[in-house]
Order: sequence, then structure tokens, then C-alpha cells
Amino acid sequence: MTLDELNAKSAAAFVDALSEVFEHAPWVAATARKAAPFATVTALHEAMMAALRSAPIEAQLAFLRGHPDLAAPTAERRTMAAFSVAEQAALGLDRLDAQRFTEFERLNAAYRDRFGIPFMICVRRHTRSSILTQFVRRLDRPPEQELAAALHEVFLITRLRICGLVTGPGLPVTSGRLTTHVLDTAAGIPAAGIRIDLFELDDAAPVLLCTDTTNADGRTDALLLSGGPLRIGEYELRFHVAAHFRTVATDPPFLDVIPIRFAIAEAEAHYHVPLLVSPYGYSTYRGS
Amino acid sequence: MTLDELNAKSAAAFVDALSEVFEHAPWVAATARKAAPFATVTALHEAMMAALRSAPIEAQLAFLRGHPDLAAPTAERRTMAAFSVAEQAALGLDRLDAQRFTEFERLNAAYRDRFGIPFMICVRRHTRSSILTQFVRRLDRPPEQELAAALHEVFLITRLRICGLVTGPGLPVTSGRLTTHVLDTAAGIPAAGIRIDLFELDDAAPVLLCTDTTNADGRTDALLLSGGPLRIGEYELRFHVAAHFRTVATDPPFLDVIPIRFAIAEAEAHYHVPLLVSPYGYSTYRGS
Amino acid sequence: MTLDELNAKSAAAFVDALSEVFEHAPWVAATARKAAPFATVTALHEAMMAALRSAPIEAQLAFLRGHPDLAAPTAERRTMAAFSVAEQAALGLDRLDAQRFTEFERLNAAYRDRFGIPFMICVRRHTRSSILTQFVRRLDRPPEQELAAALHEVFLITRLRICGLVTGPGLPVTSGRLTTHVLDTAAGIPAAGIRIDLFELDDAAPVLLCTDTTNADGRTDALLLSGGPLRIGEYELRFHVAAHFRTVATDPPFLDVIPIRFAIAEAEAHYHVPLLVSPYGYSTYRGS
Amino acid sequence: MTLDELNAKSAAAFVDALSEVFEHAPWVAATARKAAPFATVTALHEAMMAALRSAPIEAQLAFLRGHPDLAAPTAERRTMAAFSVAEQAALGLDRLDAQRFTEFERLNAAYRDRFGIPFMICVRRHTRSSILTQFVRRLDRPPEQELAAALHEVFLITRLRICGLVTGPGLPVTSGRLTTHVLDTAAGIPAAGIRIDLFELDDAAPVLLCTDTTNADGRTDALLLSGGPLRIGEYELRFHVAAHFRTVATDPPFLDVIPIRFAIAEAEAHYHVPLLVSPYGYSTYRGS
Repeated sequence: MTLDELNAKSAAAFVDALSEVFEHAPWVAATARKAAPFATVTALHEAMMAALRSAPIEAQLAFLRGHPDLAAPTAERRTMAAFSVAEQAALGLDRLDAQRFTEFERLNAAYRDRFGIPFMICVRRHTRSSILTQFVRRLDRPPEQELAAALHEVFLITRLRICGLVTGPGLPVTSGRLTTHVLDTAAGIPAAGIRIDLFELDDAAPVLLCTDTTNADGRTDALLLSGGPLRIGEYELRFHVAAHFRTVATDPPFLDVIPIRFAIAEAEAHYHVPLLVSPYGYSTYRGS
Repeated sequence: MTLDELNAKSAAAFVDALSEVFEHAPWVAATARKAAPFATVTALHEAMMAALRSAPIEAQLAFLRGHPDLAAPTAERRTMAAFSVAEQAALGLDRLDAQRFTEFERLNAAYRDRFGIPFMICVRRHTRSSILTQFVRRLDRPPEQELAAALHEVFLITRLRICGLVTGPGLPVTSGRLTTHVLDTAAGIPAAGIRIDLFELDDAAPVLLCTDTTNADGRTDALLLSGGPLRIGEYELRFHVAAHFRTVATDPPFLDVIPIRFAIAEAEAHYHVPLLVSPYGYSTYRGS
Repeated sequence: MTLDELNAKSAAAFVDALSEVFEHAPWVAATARKAAPFATVTALHEAMMAALRSAPIEAQLAFLRGHPDLAAPTAERRTMAAFSVAEQAALGLDRLDAQRFTEFERLNAAYRDRFGIPFMICVRRHTRSSILTQFVRRLDRPPEQELAAALHEVFLITRLRICGLVTGPGLPVTSGRLTTHVLDTAAGIPAAGIRIDLFELDDAAPVLLCTDTTNADGRTDALLLSGGPLRIGEYELRFHVAAHFRTVATDPPFLDVIPIRFAIAEAEAHYHVPLLVSPYGYSTYRGS
Repeated sequence: MTLDELNAKSAAAFVDALSEVFEHAPWVAATARKAAPFATVTALHEAMMAALRSAPIEAQLAFLRGHPDLAAPTAERRTMAAFSVAEQAALGLDRLDAQRFTEFERLNAAYRDRFGIPFMICVRRHTRSSILTQFVRRLDRPPEQELAAALHEVFLITRLRICGLVTGPGLPVTSGRLTTHVLDTAAGIPAAGIRIDLFELDDAAPVLLCTDTTNADGRTDALLLSGGPLRIGEYELRFHVAAHFRTVATDPPFLDVIPIRFAIAEAEAHYHVPLLVSPYGYSTYRGS
């Protein structure tokens, strides 16, 4: 749907088209509609957020309370908005093992007990470990600060949903990228044919996200991560360099698989994590 | 026992004092005794190796056949020399799980079948993974090359035993060292208080060897590895740098635990593996 | 002039259009014309080189002897082709000081004396220092090797001239590039606003080629060198980093102006020479 | 002279022995003598500084006014203390060219005019460039701050003189060191046989301080700078690496002479400035 098409809709059709953005709260779209037509997608989203923020506190709380718990049991998921279901499933929150499930249940209960609302977080911007870290940390905050945090997460969640529904001018940046580059500083050339594995570091065990091989320019043809926000969390790149240096290496070679462990803290940023490597040493850094 | 004391002994006492060096082969010491007195420990060891190498091939093979298999079952260990028992136990070869045990049994049988002697390796110079790598690789070699390899391992094994028994001038270098050093290149000072974990990378899982913390000069007070040959194999140092950079870091910090994975190929060498680190980048290399 | 236009010309007009490419030797173009029309600029150039190479040795030598000396005195320059005049002037060979002029005079005489031809070199691919290095080195070579070297330089010289005259498909790569990139590894961001000076290192003194300032991505908006072959020789980049780190620096700052000295050996290549810098350390390397 | 010998002296002999420390001010030693005997050299020096600081302001100013100008003309130098003569000569302040001499004359006059005392600076802790930088900067300060600065320089000057005269326990640290280390990260070994030149960067031109060659451990046998305070200022190390990498290098080699330019800001510190180098890249940093 283009922004022009949306602008052209009747009030009812407008509200209907955006019904899943602010979950179970058609009044948000209805209020925002008064400011139509919108020149940019960003302006549309800001108008919806303004509608929410300027509503009475009871309406805001009611809206927040309409959201599901994270990792809710199957029965509850039946009433969840389709967006929520998909976002949680992408992170495996719908099929946790018993121990993790119990941990989420305990945190959900503690949070609702303390703040009177469910824990809001833009799931698509986080790894599972990062969600747990945020959950524990935010449980300790004063309630007024936490209401602001919940609304900021709603901002992030709905911005992503809008960007998935409406195309047009003024689309906000909601995607990040992870890239790498391998240079052989002993030969002064890009290191081609290096296998690279990318892992997400979960508390339980590293999860392999993708495997690629460097091209003639020492880069991967595809971005390692892209197409949406990066998930905030910890990662490890593993560069298999032994084959590249086999003619000059000892047995076993000093460097074989080089792990580079780093965290992504900004979901919409470009993370460039290169490797400068010679047979007996290497460097890495956050590049651009 | 000093070299002087050994030189002063009668032939019988001399042979008795060195009886465990060349296992079940007192004739080696007896032959070497003819060249006494020895000016250096190295000369003593060379005389014993010369006695072995100049013996008829049947005597050499009989000597080699008197050695135990690696990871032999309990019954066989009863007849093993004390040195062999201790050397194998230090690497856990006396308490392998069933799968590993079967693997060693299969390799031992294949090796004896092909070469007519047990697999000789200086256990104290290797990790368990490195022993398996050597085992598989040496099984493929031509027999004449493998006899030379077996005698070279006897050289390494007995040199270590001699150095443990006799002190005196001309002691050969049989120890290696692993050290590190952490420099903060953003502040231009050694990074103090950095926790460092050292792991041996076994096929099964990393084995924690030691944990230390950097002092005011960015080094550890004790050597990370020392006091004997380094075990050839793969290692990982993990530097916990997040606390050091906490005032300037994002959340989560770009660098938290930095793993440096490297191999030791020379058991008697000094491996210096430093970390040059700033909040968003680091280097490592084999130093000196 | 496009390749199509050239292909469409009469034989006489064709020869006339290319008269300055092979200096004082219209017969080269006339012979090559027999293979017209040409599908690519490269094919045109190869046909001209083939005409030269397949001519009798006397004709080849006569062609070579028709070339001027390097840094020839004013009187001789009057008979030089316009291309030669411009190429030599760009390097200041037409206004050397007395000492240098005498050095070139001596080398020119020695070279003609030994090989019977003037010293041929593609001036546009070299710094003055590099030309002198080549001159001295090539004076020592056996004559048959030196004739091949002279013809290879004719290939390089005329390829550049053709590329300046004729546009069309199959244009060979005759340009190189020099770029840089400054990353602040303490802050994890590109270092913007860093002044960079590029010098050519001549025997006499460094010659400032250009000055630029890094943009928000830590790069320069324009390439440092481009638009033709790079001149083989030695260079120095100077990065003025003190202002960037002034809030954390000692007095005087550990790093102020960072010089990076390197050589360009391939005139048609891309040289990327980045700087990774924190207040107390830096790295550089040949990148891509 | 040992501290014990000094402690044992009569008051007159004590004052006489220390007469050149506080120039033309025997009363400083006489006052300090009341606190004898001194347990440490530091305590002796502190007692003398305390004597100066607790004297009436007129006496302090008279003491300061008894000091010579920097780079004073020959006639004035006749009345200078031997220490001052030697300290200034070591920096060439007694034989400046006309332009520099005029610059010092102008600064000396401006300083005396503004503060009523000569410019005090511990010459042995500075390069000539650093002295000029300090001179210009301190001319701008408020007078009360500048009196404190002058007394601090007296502290530094006299501490060095005491350490040259008296040996004994509690000698303060007045020496710095400059060291380097060259590692070949392509070969994993120290780079031996690398020629290193150390220059002081003066405004006029670099001044060669020493030349050395790396030993088998990649270090120089002697410290590059030692035996007294380091002179605050800018330096350049030049590492001649081309010969070391000649078997793998292009022509000309990408790296030939590597200049590392850095400043020393702490005269009594250890500056370790290593080079980690492979044929196409290098790193440096302030180490320890």
C-alpha cells in the first residue's frame, strides 16, 4: 500500500488498513486520521504516536494492557495480533524449553505485579539474551520511568509495522547491516576464499546464523546481516584462515580459526567488523 | 641427584639410578656408563641415546615393544613404568570415556599391526587432541620413517626424565612458557585488573587451565604456562575487558570478552600472546 | 574522436589522426590501418604495436632513435613531439637545476653509448626519483633485454596516448587510484575533520601534492590521486590527528602528525592506505 | 659524595658542598642544615625547598633574579653557575644562530618585563622546541601562577643537581627511558638486524640523536634514550625494514623506511614504542 493510496482512503478504510499497527486500538488510527493527508511515512507514524501520547493515561494503560506477555502459553496466543505472533515466533519465544519458559513466566508475573502492564519490548530489535537482560534491568526501575520506556518500545514496534505496510517518501531508517572484510597484511591483498561463520551468542550455546566465503575483494557477496533491524546482542564471527596461510604455517598453525566476539548495541546502524591478518597476528575494529 | 653424585657411582648403582629412564632396558644405561664421567647432563643423555641407536635393530625393536599402549586398560597399567603411568595420568588417558577409549584401542591395534611396535609419543609435550592428530597422521607414514619418529620420541621422553632425575651443568632446555600483556591503546597505559582465562581446546569442549588478573604492568604475576614443556595443541585466552572500558562503552559494550585462539607448535618455546585493546578494536600477535 | 569516426576515415586521414602516437613514424599507423576496422581501442593499439614489432630491426631502431633524450636541452626540445614535451614538462624535466641536468646528461650519454638508442621510459608512470632509479638499473642490463624493455615502454607510452585520443569500447585500464580512510578505534567511529597532506618523496625534499580533510565517513571526498597512471615512487601521507584527540591528550600529545611512508609499484592499481588510530597507537596497511 | 658523608660535615662544609645547587644562595643550604641529619636524599632536597618556600617573598624573588637568562650572551655567561652553563650548552643554547638568538632575547625581555624575574625552566627536561613552546605559553599566564611555576622549575632543577652530587638511600626517580621492539607478524618472530634512527624534531630540521640495530630479540642492546630525564618534545623513530622483507617485496617495496613520530610529555617516564610489522602493514603504540 502506498502512502498516496492510504491518504485517499475514507476514515473507516484508513482505520481498517492500519488496524494491526497499534494492537486492539483502532482509536489511535482514527485520531491520527484527522491530520491526514500525510506528506511522509514518518509524519503518519508521528501522528499516530501523538494520538496515543495525548490520550488520557487510563486509555494509554488500557492500550498497553491489551498486549500479550512475551512467550505466552498457546492458549493466550490465540488472541494475539498476527504481528505479535510472527515477531515472537521469529525469536523462538513460542517454543522455549521448560526452564526458559518458567523464567519468562516468573519475569512476566513480577513485571505485571510491579508496573500493572505487560513488559513491552520491540522483539525484532533484540536477541533472546538481550530481551532477558532488559527484562531483569527494567524490573528495577521506578514506575514513571518504565511507562516512558514502554511507550518508546511501542514507538519502535509500530514504526517497524508501518514500514512493513506503507511505502512512500520519508520512510524512516529501520534496518541495520553487518559486514566484514578480510585483508592479508603479509601479502598486501584481500584474502579470498576465507570461510566465515556468524554465530549469535545465546546463554545456552552459540547459534549459527550464516556461513559465507570471502570473494576476490576479501568481502562477502551478501551482507552478513541485513533486511531489518539488527538484533541487539552478542555475536561471534569465526574466520577460518589456516588454509589461506598453509604454505607458511607451523604445525599446527599459530592461527587456525579466529573468533571475533562483539556486541551490537544499535539495531539500525552499520556494523563493519573487518579482520586484518597475517600468519602470526591480527587486528579487528569497528569500521565503517 | 647431582651429576657429580651420579658420575661417582659404581656401574651397578649407576644403572640402578637410571633404570626408569629407558623403560625395562637397563642395558642402555650399562652401555652408556662406559663413557662416564659426563661433563654435562646433555652429554649423559646423548650417551644413552647413542647406546640405543647403535644397538642391533632387534634390540631397538624389543626396547620399543616393551612400552605400553597409550590409554591401556587397567590390567596392563600394572606392568607400566611409574613414569609412564604418571605421564599418561596427567593427560587423563587413564580415565577416558568409552568412546575415546575405543578410539585409542582401535588406533593402538592398527598401529601395532602396521609397524610392529606400539605408538611412541612424548605425552608430556602434547594435548590429548594433538596426540590423536599425530596418531592418525603417523599411521599413514612409511615404516622406515616411522621407526625414526619413534626413536625421536624416545629422545624427547627420556630427555625429560633425565632432567627430572639429575641436576648439573649443561641441562637442556625442556620447558616452554606462555605469557601475555594487555595494553590500553586509548589511554596509553597497561590495562590492570583484566581477568584472563586460559582454555585448552579439546575436541569435546574447552578445558579451563587457569584464571588470572593483570597487574599494574598489564601482565600476570605468574606465567600462564611454565614448569615443563608446553603441550602442543590449541588454546584460547579470554580477556574480560568490559569492566575496564565501562565508562566509555555502549550497552552492551562492543567488546566484552575477547577470545584469542592460537596453537602451540613448539613445546620448548616462549609464546607471548599480547592484547592491544581500545574500546572498539584490538590486535594480537606472537610476540617475544 | 570516437573509434567509429576513426574507423570511417580514409587511410591518409587515419594516419594523420594518429600521427603523434608513434612519434615521427607514420608508417606504424599506415601498416596497422590494413587491419581496420577495429572493434576495440585495445585492438587498435595492439595492431599498431604489432606493426612496430614485425618491422625489420633497423626500422625499429630508427624509430627508437627518433625519440628525444630525457631532460634534453631547449634547442633539442624544438623538434620533440608535442606529447613528449608535455609529458616531460609535467615532471619538471624541462627545468632541472644544474646538478640534476648534468646527471641526466651523463646518464643519457652513457645509455646511448652502450645501447645505441635513447633511454625509453613511460614518463607518466614514474616520479623523477623512480626514473633515475630505473635509468641507473637499466644501464647495467644486457642489450637484448634492454631492447625488449624499450619496446615495452613504447607500449606503455603509446597506450596512454591512444587512450587520450580515441574513445570507444575496450578501453584498457590505464589509471590508478590512491585512497585513505581514518577510523578512531577508541570511539568506534570514522574520524572526521582530519587534515591529510600527501607528499611525493623526491631525493631533494618532499613535494606536497595535495591537502584534504576527512568527511563524516573518515574518507576524503576526492581521490588523493587519480585520473591517470599513478607515478611509481615513494610517498608520504601525513595525518594531523592532534586536534581530534585534544580532550584526552597529554601535553604535547603522544600523537600529533602521523606520517605514513609507502611506495607505489603498480601504476594502474588501487592503493588504499587507511589509518586506524587511537590516542596512543595506530595501524596502517595496504587495503582494498 | 655519599649522604652519610654530607650528614657528617660541619655546617660550613655542608653549605659549601651544596653551594651550586641553589645558585648564588648559600642561605638555602644553611637553613636546611638545621634539619640534618637526613635519612634520604629526597628528605635533604625537600628540606632545601622548604627553606626556599618559607623564606620572605623578597628573598625568593632575589633568589630567582640571581638566575641567568636562557641563551644569554657570552659576557653574561661569565657570572653563571657552572651547572647552568653546562645545562644550557647541552642544548646548544650557547651557540644559537642570529634569528633564534634574537627570538630568545625578545622573549627574555618580555618575560622579565611582565613578571620581574627571569624565565625559569629545567632545561635538562626539554628540547629546544619545547622550551620555546613553554616560553610563549607561560608569558600569557597570571603572575601569581607564574611564580608557582618558577618555584616548581627550581624544584626540578635542584632535584637533578642534588642527584648528581649526593648518593644514598631515597634517591628520587629523575631518569626516563625510551625503548623499542620490532616484531615480524608475518613470520611470528622478532625482526633482527633492523636499523633504527632516532631523531629529535626541531623546528628547523630533524636532529639525529642515535642509530642502532635490533638484536635477535628485536630490541636494541642499549636503551635509545636513558641516563637522565627525557627531553620533553617531539621525536621520530625510523625503522629501515626493506632489507628484512626483500624476498617478498614489490619493486619498490611498499614499506621501506617506516617513520614513527611521537611526543614525550613525561620526562621521568618509560616510553616503549614498538613496531609490529608485516610486508604490507604495521602497528605502533605506547607500550610498557
